[in-house]
Amino acid sequence: MVFENPLVKEILEKYRVLWAIEHAMSLMSWDSETYMPREGYRDRAVARAELSLLQQQLLLRPEFVELVEKADKYEDLNDYERGVVRVLKRSIRIARALPPWLVAERAKVTQEAMVVWREARVRNDFDLFKPYLEKIFDLSRKTADFLGWDKHPYDALLDLYEEGLKTEDVDRILGVLKTNLKQIIDGVLSKGMYPREHPLEKIPYETGKMEAVNKKILEILNYPIGVRSRLDTSAHPFTIDMGINDVRITTRYEGVDFKRTMFSVIHEFGHALYQLQIDPALSYTPIGGGVSLGVHEGQSRFWENIIGRSREFVEFVYPILRENLDFIKDYTPSDIYYYFNTVKPSFIRVDADEVTYNMHILLRTELEKLAITGEIKVSDLPEFWNDYMEKLLGIRPRTYGEGVLQDIHWSMGSVGYFPTYTLGNMVAASMRYAMEKEIKLRERVASGEFETIQNWQKDRIHKYGATYPPKELLRKAIGVDYEPEHLIRYLAEKYLK
Amino acid sequence: MVFENPLVKEILEKYRVLWAIEHAMSLMSWDSETYMPREGYRDRAVARAELSLLQQQLLLRPEFVELVEKADKYEDLNDYERGVVRVLKRSIRIARALPPWLVAERAKVTQEAMVVWREARVRNDFDLFKPYLEKIFDLSRKTADFLGWDKHPYDALLDLYEEGLKTEDVDRILGVLKTNLKQIIDGVLSKGMYPREHPLEKIPYETGKMEAVNKKILEILNYPIGVRSRLDTSAHPFTIDMGINDVRITTRYEGVDFKRTMFSVIHEFGHALYQLQIDPALSYTPIGGGVSLGVHEGQSRFWENIIGRSREFVEFVYPILRENLDFIKDYTPSDIYYYFNTVKPSFIRVDADEVTYNMHILLRTELEKLAITGEIKVSDLPEFWNDYMEKLLGIRPRTYGEGVLQDIHWSMGSVGYFPTYTLGNMVAASMRYAMEKEIKLRERVASGEFETIQNWQKDRIHKYGATYPPKELLRKAIGVDYEPEHLIRYLAEKYLK
Repeated sequence: MVFENPLVKEILEKYRVLWAIEHAMSLMSWDSETYMPREGYRDRAVARAELSLLQQQLLLRPEFVELVEKADKYEDLNDYERGVVRVLKRSIRIARALPPWLVAERAKVTQEAMVVWREARVRNDFDLFKPYLEKIFDLSRKTADFLGWDKHPYDALLDLYEEGLKTEDVDRILGVLKTNLKQIIDGVLSKGMYPREHPLEKIPYETGKMEAVNKKILEILNYPIGVRSRLDTSAHPFTIDMGINDVRITTRYEGVDFKRTMFSVIHEFGHALYQLQIDPALSYTPIGGGVSLGVHEGQSRFWENIIGRSREFVEFVYPILRENLDFIKDYTPSDIYYYFNTVKPSFIRVDADEVTYNMHILLRTELEKLAITGEIKVSDLPEFWNDYMEKLLGIRPRTYGEGVLQDIHWSMGSVGYFPTYTLGNMVAASMRYAMEKEIKLRERVASGEFETIQNWQKDRIHKYGATYPPKELLRKAIGVDYEPEHLIRYLAEKYLK
Repeated sequence: MVFENPLVKEILEKYRVLWAIEHAMSLMSWDSETYMPREGYRDRAVARAELSLLQQQLLLRPEFVELVEKADKYEDLNDYERGVVRVLKRSIRIARALPPWLVAERAKVTQEAMVVWREARVRNDFDLFKPYLEKIFDLSRKTADFLGWDKHPYDALLDLYEEGLKTEDVDRILGVLKTNLKQIIDGVLSKGMYPREHPLEKIPYETGKMEAVNKKILEILNYPIGVRSRLDTSAHPFTIDMGINDVRITTRYEGVDFKRTMFSVIHEFGHALYQLQIDPALSYTPIGGGVSLGVHEGQSRFWENIIGRSREFVEFVYPILRENLDFIKDYTPSDIYYYFNTVKPSFIRVDADEVTYNMHILLRTELEKLAITGEIKVSDLPEFWNDYMEKLLGIRPRTYGEGVLQDIHWSMGSVGYFPTYTLGNMVAASMRYAMEKEIKLRERVASGEFETIQNWQKDRIHKYGATYPPKELLRKAIGVDYEPEHLIRYLAEKYLK
C-alpha cells in the first residue's frame, strides 16, 4: 500500500472533494476551448468563480488544515505521505497568504485584460492595453509581498509556477545560456547547413489529411485515443487532464506549413504522457499530477525536440507523411529533416526554433524582474523589449504584435511563468543524456520502440507524480536538476557538428 | 427587479455555489455521453459521488436552511421569491428525509444494476437482473417510507419526479385514457387510413446527409446552434443545460428509417426551447430551470407530435428532405405524412406511435404500483407484463427485451418516472387547443412562423421557469392542468376523421 499512515489516509478522504472540484474545473476549461457554444461563457464564468471560491474555502477548513499540520509533525511518513503533506502545506500557505480582495481583483482585471489584449494586439495599440498591464504588474507585486520574499520579489512569483525556484537560479541559468547560445546561433547561421526558411513552410494542406497524420503519429507513440485520451481542435493547443484515465490534448490547423500542427501535437503528447503514466495509486490525491511546470515542459520538449526533430524520427514518420500528403513526394527524408529544423532569429516566441527559443525567455525574464521592482515603467516596456531583442537576436520588432503584445501570459496575470519554458528545455536535454547511458535512444527511435523510452520516463519520473519536489525528483531521476550544460551540449552537437 | 426581498437575495447569494456544482455536474453528464474517453468513467464516477455529497451538505448547511425557513414566514414575497422558497423547501425536505446510507446504497446498487441490465437484455436473461430489480423496488419502497406518504407509497415516488402528483391523479387520468384509447386504436386500425408500416422505414440514409437535414430543421426552428446551443451524437438522445446560454441536445444515427433521428431531434428541441426561453433574470437561482418533468415533456411532445407530425410541417420540411435525401424524390409530401404517422401496436415504448404510446405508460404504472406495495413479486413481473400487454394492445412479447427488460429506468432506480410521459402528452395537446384560441397554429406552421408559436410558449410557460408549481402554472397558462380530454380529442380528430 502506498498510503498507510491513518492521519494521511484521513487527509486523503477529506481531500477527495477538492480533487472532484478540480476534475470539474478541468472539464469546464477543456469544454470552454473546444465545444462550448459562444454565449455559454457567461454562465461558465459565474460557475468558475463560485467553484474557485469553494475550493479555497474547503482547503482552508480549520479541521483540514489542522490534520495537515498534525501529519507534518510525524517523522515516519513514507515518501508518498510526505509528498501529500508537502503539497498540501504549500497550497494552504498560498491560499492563506492571499487576501480575498486580491484574488477577486485579480480575477476581475485579468478577465477584462484578456479581451483588451486581443483587441490591442490586432489594432497594434499598446496604449489600449497599458493601463491593464500596469494594474497586472501592480497586483503581481502585491501578490509577491503577501506571499513573502527574501532576496527579490520575483522569487515569490517564480515559486507559484515552479516550487522552490529562485531569481538567482534563473539569473545563473540564463547567464550561462546567453553567452553560449549567442555563439551557437552565430555558428549555425554562418555555417548555413540549417536553412533559415524552407519551401514546405508555404505549402498548404487539407485539414482532414493532416488530422489523419496527427492521429497516426499519436498511434505510433501509443497515445490511447478514445480509451484514455482525446485529440481535439482549439484556438491554442493545450493539454488537460481529468485524472489518469482521461487526458486530452488539442491542436489547431492553420492550413499551411504542416510542421506547426504536427509539432504542437507531439509537444502536447509529451505533456499527456506524463499524466498517463502516473501511478494509479496516486489518483484523487494532491500528488496525482505532474510536479511542476518545468518538469512538465521537460517532457513535452523532449518529445517535440529531442525525439520529434531528430533524423531518426523523420525516417520513421516519412512513410506516414508520404501516404497522406501529396506534396511530400517531391521531398526526401533529408529535406523534411531540414524543414523541421530551420533556424532563424524571429520575433514570435511560439514560432522560434530550439536554438533561438531561450533568448525569447531571457528577454521576458529580464523585463519581468525590472517591471516587478518598478525599475522600469510599463510605458517603457515596448522600447525596452525592442532594444533587447535587437541586442539578443539582431532583429527589431516593427509592431507591438511582433514585440511586447505577442504573448497572452501577462493578460492572464501570469508573471514569473516564462522561465519554466527554459527549465523544460534543459530538462529535456538532460533527460536525453541520462537516458542514453542506459538505452540506445537513437536506435529505439529508428525502430519505433517508443515504449522503451516511455517506460524509462515512467520509472524515473512520471510514476511519482508530485511525490518529490521538482529538483529532488530530477536529481534522483537524471542526476542533475536545472542545469544548462546539457542543453548547450545538445544544441552544439546537433547544429554545429 | 425580480428579486427584492433582502432575505431572498441573501438566500440566492448563498445558493449560487449550488447552482455552480449543478452546472459542473451537467457538463460532466453531457461529456460522459458524448466525448469522454472510455476509461474516463472511473474518475468521473468518483468526482460525481463527491460532488453529489457536497451538494447535499451545502444545501443542508444549518444557516442556509434557517434563512429559507425564515423567508417562508414572510407574507409579502412576490411570485418569484415565493417560487425560490417553495423549490428550496422541497429540496431541503427531500434531502433531509433520506438517510445517507440509503442514498449511498441506492447509488451503489444502480451503478451495478445499469451494467447488469444491459447484459441481461442482450442475453434475454431476466434472472440475471432479478436480484437487482428486487433490491431497487425494496429501496424505492424504503425511499417512499422515509419521504412519508398518506394514501399510497407510490405518491411519495411520483412527487420526486412531478411535484405534487398523486397516485389517485394518475389512476384517474390513466383510467379515462385506457377506455378512450382502446376505441381510438381499434378505430384507426380498422379504418386503415394510417398504415401500420411504411416502405421508408427500410430505406437507409447517409449519416452526413441526415445530419444536414437535422441541422437545417433546427435552423428553421430558430435553435441557436453554436451561439447558445449544440447538437451532438450519443447512444440515447437527451437534452441538458448548463444555464440559459448553453443548452445542448443529442441524437443518434441508426442509418435507416430517417424519421427516428429526425423526431428525436425535434423532441429534444422542444425540451431545449423551454430552457432557452426562461427569463434570464432567473439565472443561477433555484427557479431558473423547467418546473417539472411533466411540463417539460409537454414542450417536447408538442414540437415532436403536434407540430412535427402535422401535415403542415411535412409540407414545410419536404424541400429540405428532398434536397438532402436522394430517395425522397419517389415520395410525395402525403407519403411522407403517412410515413411520419404509422400506427401499430408494438412492443417497444420508445418506438410507439402517439396513439398507442400511453398504453405503454399505463402498463408500467400499474406494475410499479403493485410492485412497490408488494402485491406482486418481482419474479412475477415478466408474466404480468406480457399478460397486460396482450390485454392492452393485443400483442405478447416473445423476449424479455420486448417486455420487462426494455427500459433503462428501473436500473437507474427511477420508479414513478413513467407517468410523467403521459402528463407530457396531455400538456402538449392541451397547449395546442389553448394556443389555437389565440393564434392560428396550422397557418403559422404552414408559413414557417415558428417564432409566433415560440413566443406564445415563452410568455405563457417558459419564461417563468419553476416560479409556480406545475399545476398552477398550467392552469394559468392553458386553463387546465393534467387533463386527458384534450389528448383524446386531438387523437380522435387526427386519426379518426
